Amino acid sequence: MSAIEELFDFNKKTLLLQSVAGRTAWDQETMMPKEGAALRSQEMGALEEIIHIRKQDKRIADWLDKAKPETEEDKRKIELIKRGFERANLVPVKLATELAETSSKSQIVWQEARKNNNFSDFSPYLEKVVNLKREEAAHLTKTGELYDGLINDYEHGMTKNEISEIFNIMKPRLLNLKKKISESEIHISKIKGDFDASKQLALSKEIASVFRYDFDRGRIDTVTHPFCSGNGNDVRVTTRTDLKDPFNCIYSTIHEVGHASYEQNVNSNYNLTPLGSGVSLGIHESQSRIFENQLGRSRAFTKWLFKRMKETFSNFDIKNEEEFYRIVNKVSPGFIRTEADEIHYNLHIMLRFELEIAIISKEIEVEDLVDAWNTKFKSFFNKEVKNVSDGALQDVHWSIGAFGYFPTYTLGNLNAGCLFQTMKSDLPNLENNLENGEIGPAKDWLTKKIHQHGSMYEPKNLIKKATGREFSVEPFISYLEEKFTDLYFN
Amino acid sequence: MSAIEELFDFNKKTLLLQSVAGRTAWDQETMMPKEGAALRSQEMGALEEIIHIRKQDKRIADWLDKAKPETEEDKRKIELIKRGFERANLVPVKLATELAETSSKSQIVWQEARKNNNFSDFSPYLEKVVNLKREEAAHLTKTGELYDGLINDYEHGMTKNEISEIFNIMKPRLLNLKKKISESEIHISKIKGDFDASKQLALSKEIASVFRYDFDRGRIDTVTHPFCSGNGNDVRVTTRTDLKDPFNCIYSTIHEVGHASYEQNVNSNYNLTPLGSGVSLGIHESQSRIFENQLGRSRAFTKWLFKRMKETFSNFDIKNEEEFYRIVNKVSPGFIRTEADEIHYNLHIMLRFELEIAIISKEIEVEDLVDAWNTKFKSFFNKEVKNVSDGALQDVHWSIGAFGYFPTYTLGNLNAGCLFQTMKSDLPNLENNLENGEIGPAKDWLTKKIHQHGSMYEPKNLIKKATGREFSVEPFISYLEEKFTDLYFN
Repeated sequence: MSAIEELFDFNKKTLLLQSVAGRTAWDQETMMPKEGAALRSQEMGALEEIIHIRKQDKRIADWLDKAKPETEEDKRKIELIKRGFERANLVPVKLATELAETSSKSQIVWQEARKNNNFSDFSPYLEKVVNLKREEAAHLTKTGELYDGLINDYEHGMTKNEISEIFNIMKPRLLNLKKKISESEIHISKIKGDFDASKQLALSKEIASVFRYDFDRGRIDTVTHPFCSGNGNDVRVTTRTDLKDPFNCIYSTIHEVGHASYEQNVNSNYNLTPLGSGVSLGIHESQSRIFENQLGRSRAFTKWLFKRMKETFSNFDIKNEEEFYRIVNKVSPGFIRTEADEIHYNLHIMLRFELEIAIISKEIEVEDLVDAWNTKFKSFFNKEVKNVSDGALQDVHWSIGAFGYFPTYTLGNLNAGCLFQTMKSDLPNLENNLENGEIGPAKDWLTKKIHQHGSMYEPKNLIKKATGREFSVEPFISYLEEKFTDLYFN
Repeated sequence: MSAIEELFDFNKKTLLLQSVAGRTAWDQETMMPKEGAALRSQEMGALEEIIHIRKQDKRIADWLDKAKPETEEDKRKIELIKRGFERANLVPVKLATELAETSSKSQIVWQEARKNNNFSDFSPYLEKVVNLKREEAAHLTKTGELYDGLINDYEHGMTKNEISEIFNIMKPRLLNLKKKISESEIHISKIKGDFDASKQLALSKEIASVFRYDFDRGRIDTVTHPFCSGNGNDVRVTTRTDLKDPFNCIYSTIHEVGHASYEQNVNSNYNLTPLGSGVSLGIHESQSRIFENQLGRSRAFTKWLFKRMKETFSNFDIKNEEEFYRIVNKVSPGFIRTEADEIHYNLHIMLRFELEIAIISKEIEVEDLVDAWNTKFKSFFNKEVKNVSDGALQDVHWSIGAFGYFPTYTLGNLNAGCLFQTMKSDLPNLENNLENGEIGPAKDWLTKKIHQHGSMYEPKNLIKKATGREFSVEPFISYLEEKFTDLYFN
């Protein structure tokens, strides 16, 4: 074999082991018996050690030196392998191991602390994680700015300054929109009654098919916190049911099917190469968000969904399409990010971003975190946080050291905004399709513009190729302003 | 770390990776989407390569040299690691890889060939497998007898001669018993009607609990060919349902729960050490068989089961306990091993053993196999094989090169015979317990005598420790003679 063949073959086996690790993690959330946890964490540790060692393997440097890529695809593969190899070798093994062990423990403590609404049990662990992440960031950063070293792991090339600029544009307009809505005379109720879990699931599976999820290459199961897992021909979706809130199940499913659609529709020639999965979290989240919100919560699609829910649930008491549309789009300043509407969601992200910046730069310490959170929450949401479980303890991310991850959620919304603007003009019948529950054309458009390319292009290039324009904040903000002004004032 | 600690730690990680591989194989049969197969076989290949390399790792030799085991347990662990290391290094890597690749292909071809009832499609692949296995056997054998090298992988220390001696005692007595039964005037019907699959499953799960399967450390799913997978705190059972035959589901479940009971009840200090799972196939099969047959098909337990099935299935038309007992123990010379009664099952094994001996020693070749099978089947079962799918193509074993595996099924029956003899005298209330669906005392007896010891003792020692006697064919044969003479002549 030539050097490039050896390199790709070695990389393929690493990807295969990562695929096994991903499915083992899936099993942990979906299938694992109650007492299997201790064995499982040891299994994951053993697998991850093997994978980590492979990523650092010195032979990669040699193969990279000798590799002669000829096609654009091969050049990009080499670029991505090189990036991964350099990344794996930037952080000393001792630090990487310490981080893995500390965050694994910290996550377990966080779960208990959140359950008990008690930050002080968790704070010594979070302190350790934060210190290790600061140390790691110092190894990773290329700009000197610590936070840049962290976000780069989730959204390659993105920087603190760029995100700050984006958020500085968004924040006043979102706060303004939020204020305007609070003055509306339209008051939207919530859905009432109990909704059979198995019917919720059956309907969600039907909707997954409507969104063109391929069940021959995946499956749907229930979990506590929904996620999507896998690439290519084995991409699994998870969802959850809430007896009182059937929309939780339906929109969790559509969201995860958005992620799955990306992974199921990458060019199959890219399978088991560095090109074979989604390119970044910000692009991935755009695919889940556009399915969930721009399409799934559109006035047009909710007409179809209203009909199907009425047919499915005998006790369904929402009176008409318009009431239904309003209920699934109700704007309300809640404490919990994952339950937030399209406007408040981004305010949740900005709050976390500002706190992450402060904590990584040592402007504040872990002991200041709860106060800082509550003060910011008051200023953004105009509400007092009473339970720390509804505040600084609500998300898993910090417990596992995932600083720099949150901004990619809003980047996803912004990317979805850019894509939806172009999709609408490319697909003049879109509204009509959505009213009839036909998602095929929208999904095919996304496959052509985004999915099929896998990791072939950098996020910003991909958006530019897809839309013919540079990435911009404007389409998403305008979409929100138009949608919610119409919804609350017409 | 000392040499022995390093050795045990290295071994533990290999066991963890094997545990992941086992669960990945479980997923393939239970959860994997239809199109996931090609990815899966590559994943399994990558994992197995890693595991194989670890088993051969030269550091093991060094650690073994330096290790100073002090306890009996540590001495046994060292013995087993040494055995595995020597085994892994006996076969040249090239041959091992060729065998893995060939048998993987061969199995796929076999599946199709069996479906199409066409041996000639399969025979070129089987020829390759047989030639490679002969070659492998030459590397493995310590006695000069090729077959000994193969059976040793499944039942350590067992030889062709010893099995021949055992089978030579059994065969005339089984044939004699079979002949006698064929002259009985009692004719046993089959169960009639359709039986709801979900009710079969629910009842099977209840029965699994009755047999003390721990659902907190396992789960039950359905597959085409039932099996049990995993050790310690994550031991999963699979079963199947047949609309026309609820006993298939029930007795498959009890059988696999027998295997699971062994794995769930090994001393937890042995977890993730070489002692942490069942010691041999012949002992493992004794645990599944004693649950399924000596206990599950006993007159006493079938009284309880009759009652529960009558309560479960509204269309259940078996009239009384005695008819029920006869139906689940009906003796009938069928073509298919996995559907055979307790007598014919062992004749199936003997037939395969004789053919394996002949083919590995080159007495016959693959091209002679179908004729040889059919001739032997006629002489053992007095029936003509019409479809090769019901004959030489029925089992997966040869397609994957598992020559030497079949005899362990009958060894399992014989071990179960030895154990049951002692269990009955140790537990005077056994019959009464079984009539009331109380399997606890029998299961606890097996845990004390067998399960808890994991791989601490060699099979024959284990049986001797459990029964106070040397292993013998007699208890099982006597059990069969008594049970079926009573059943067919009283």
